Amino acid sequence: MTDNRYVIPLEDLKSFCADALIQEGMHEEYARITAEVLAETDALGTHSHGTKNLHNYIRKMRAGGMALNAEPVVLKEGPGYALIDGKAAIGMVPAYKAMELAIQKASECGIASVVVKNTSHFGAAGYYANMASNKNMIGLAFSNVDTNMTIPGARGKVIGNNPMSYGVPAGHYSPVFLDIAMSSVASLKVVQARKDGKPVPDTWIIDGEGLPTTDPSRYPEEGAMQPMAAHKGYGLALMIEILTGVLSGGGIMSEVPSWLFSMETKNNVSHNFIVIDVSKFMEPDEFNQRMEGVVNYLHDIPKAKGTERIYYPGEMEWDKYRKVNAEGLSLPEDVAASLQGLADDFGLTVPWAQLEGNGE
Amino acid sequence: MTDNRYVIPLEDLKSFCADALIQEGMHEEYARITAEVLAETDALGTHSHGTKNLHNYIRKMRAGGMALNAEPVVLKEGPGYALIDGKAAIGMVPAYKAMELAIQKASECGIASVVVKNTSHFGAAGYYANMASNKNMIGLAFSNVDTNMTIPGARGKVIGNNPMSYGVPAGHYSPVFLDIAMSSVASLKVVQARKDGKPVPDTWIIDGEGLPTTDPSRYPEEGAMQPMAAHKGYGLALMIEILTGVLSGGGIMSEVPSWLFSMETKNNVSHNFIVIDVSKFMEPDEFNQRMEGVVNYLHDIPKAKGTERIYYPGEMEWDKYRKVNAEGLSLPEDVAASLQGLADDFGLTVPWAQLEGNGE
Repeated sequence: MTDNRYVIPLEDLKSFCADALIQEGMHEEYARITAEVLAETDALGTHSHGTKNLHNYIRKMRAGGMALNAEPVVLKEGPGYALIDGKAAIGMVPAYKAMELAIQKASECGIASVVVKNTSHFGAAGYYANMASNKNMIGLAFSNVDTNMTIPGARGKVIGNNPMSYGVPAGHYSPVFLDIAMSSVASLKVVQARKDGKPVPDTWIIDGEGLPTTDPSRYPEEGAMQPMAAHKGYGLALMIEILTGVLSGGGIMSEVPSWLFSMETKNNVSHNFIVIDVSKFMEPDEFNQRMEGVVNYLHDIPKAKGTERIYYPGEMEWDKYRKVNAEGLSLPEDVAASLQGLADDFGLTVPWAQLEGNGE
Repeated sequence: MTDNRYVIPLEDLKSFCADALIQEGMHEEYARITAEVLAETDALGTHSHGTKNLHNYIRKMRAGGMALNAEPVVLKEGPGYALIDGKAAIGMVPAYKAMELAIQKASECGIASVVVKNTSHFGAAGYYANMASNKNMIGLAFSNVDTNMTIPGARGKVIGNNPMSYGVPAGHYSPVFLDIAMSSVASLKVVQARKDGKPVPDTWIIDGEGLPTTDPSRYPEEGAMQPMAAHKGYGLALMIEILTGVLSGGGIMSEVPSWLFSMETKNNVSHNFIVIDVSKFMEPDEFNQRMEGVVNYLHDIPKAKGTERIYYPGEMEWDKYRKVNAEGLSLPEDVAASLQGLADDFGLTVPWAQLEGNGE
């Protein structure tokens, strides 16, 4: 899917995205936060949640569905918690600031939860969890999203495939981290199977009658995604809805429109960032050594027939990240096209790396 | 599976269990906590984790694998956290006290995490989560367990199918709660299929080569459970291992023996109890109304073809609980046999209800 025509140094991608946002009128600090979150997400290989979306975020701001320079407001605050009104800002700004606050509060109380309401799609949850793991803390990030998933016994879209992420420092290894949604698979996989005309496993989606189907053309018009692991994914998606939209006083389930397909409508999602300061439980060096032991144990486990290597959660992403640092970020064609559209919109030039054989 | 010969009033079951423990020499307070947790778990229908295990817990204490009257010790403590040494006690006692402490600390900080190490099997995680939901708080309970599950690409047992639970108050509805393990299914289902000589889905277990199999006879000797939802269940089981055994300084993965099959060995599990005080974010009445709205929304969702009713997480268990309160607790034969063995051991009588048609 990647194309070595579209290689860009990571820091140049951040500058390019920030420049577009600043030109649009965004405060420089907010522009740099947004660019940082999106470009780092591309660097981990999660291109569906990275800089590809920036042009649409800007379109959404122009359509009135998102605020360009809203300043997040702390509505309630105490030793280990805060509630923030995101003021319909682009999601990365209140999310970044909420995680910073959760890290600070956890360093005092041992654990903290900072909840954000009235905000927008925050990109990939994993970025925020790793803000904590980079400070020797355990980070958790949760968000609700628009409904795209069924629950056992239902027909239609009932709840979002709400994402969650965790990040944990692991000594000389890059952090252990996981960033997952509560559906069996990402909806993009269903869309791809539909394009390819291939059947999908009967655990991925339901049809218009609420029954499992292998026909990908039933989604998204009439069907819905299935939760991972049936009632377990249902229960966990609902937990995330409670920790975010219910607890924040924000939108819940059908009150949350798609950020992308309702450009002029506020996204109305909520997040929750929970941080645990491991130094309250043991010396960080000891914790990191224990985590190195966990990674070594996983790496050394006997392999299944045909398997050569076992990965710890997040390891595949860090492998990509190291390659990006060494060789530049190689973007898939759809991301490159979106960035080119953004550049055209602003009269900018995408700073593609000048590689041998580049061009065409 | 239940048998109307074995009906017992819930409070009588608690007294019977407490009497046995007191006769064994346990402090009355600890005996009543243990009996309460186990009997309430039966009342929710989770008989695999209820009073059936009490006789084996007592055998484990006699074998030296668990302490009869160990007092949990707080090793570290701050505004929103504590670390407790369970002193190899029967798991319910430190778990109950840890959740009480987490509730108290959350009422001050907004959120709290109390971690327990060096403890034993705590029964069902759901009991503790609901201690918080009964106080108008959100409760989460996590535990590691002995390794019984593989991870993607591995052969053999790598990590426990670590359980987690959450409980949330829901106004005039009984709490929304979920109590799940990270394997595709409970190992008891594999054992049952093996007894019945029936194949299992290929997502339940792996064989001795680490490959998915439909042959239940491959477990537990050579195979292992599969995580729910493949890499997602792996990542979540590891998150729980980190929040419990790694953070506590206790046993992790292969350092945790089965509580049941190694009677003379300390179980060495760890727990983490996280509580969020919703009153810090909004009035509890408002939160409860919002949760009632969530339940109403779920109940009113259009049903799939062939489905008559949609349940919120925990609702099936509360239906059983209400039936128990009205009619007494009807126990399956294996639980009844275990209680009878316990009674014989102590010269006690199981206080079966005197129902019409009861007895042979």
